[in-house]
Amino acid sequence: MPNDPAAINLDQKFEKFSKVFSPHIIAQMNDLHVKATKIRGEFVWHRHEDTDELFFVHKGTLTIHYRDRDVVLRAGEMHVVPKGVEHKPVAEEECQLLLIEPAGTPNTGDAGGDLTATEEPWI
Amino acid sequence: MPNDPAAINLDQKFEKFSKVFSPHIIAQMNDLHVKATKIRGEFVWHRHEDTDELFFVHKGTLTIHYRDRDVVLRAGEMHVVPKGVEHKPVAEEECQLLLIEPAGTPNTGDAGGDLTATEEPWI
Repeated sequence: MPNDPAAINLDQKFEKFSKVFSPHIIAQMNDLHVKATKIRGEFVWHRHEDTDELFFVHKGTLTIHYRDRDVVLRAGEMHVVPKGVEHKPVAEEECQLLLIEPAGTPNTGDAGGDLTATEEPWI
Repeated sequence: MPNDPAAINLDQKFEKFSKVFSPHIIAQMNDLHVKATKIRGEFVWHRHEDTDELFFVHKGTLTIHYRDRDVVLRAGEMHVVPKGVEHKPVAEEECQLLLIEPAGTPNTGDAGGDLTATEEPWI
């Protein structure tokens, strides 16, 4: 799907869906997708063998657990999870965030399971 | 330079420099750089023959002129300039924005000139 030719407004995009752990594509840059997703509760431990993954928090607070430490991200903060490194995103209250990663990157990486998004629609 | 292993806070990054039209690298994801830059006034018409370019406005208002239309971006809005398409970013008052593009992409694209950033330091 082509990019919106005008401004892509994050607040408006996040109003378009309510399901958590369900990435929605809002833009494409070269071979990357920018995905809006909402998290509430615990995601699964997983890794992406072939790519880094950029997290940007729009609203709320996100904790990214690593096996040896945690990174806490608040609104206006970003973090890059290095490729191949196990991580587990967690949010006590609903958190709105952007993910930037190559198109086709599965949300649960190598882990699979019930939280795997079977489709990631454009909004 | 490696990514900050903790949160990358946009407000803190933008406090670290004042020069306009001077991109500063704040993160790397695969072969891409995330750059913080400030714009005030008119940039030059240019194009990037080999890559799309993602703009995200953190504070202020940015107008991206195309030859046949304008796109106005406010805080919390993004836009992808397609590769090969001439554009000219303009901001009447200082605007803080992020650029995401492949590492090594020159800020003035094919145009060159006085506003070409000879170095883009990590901050």
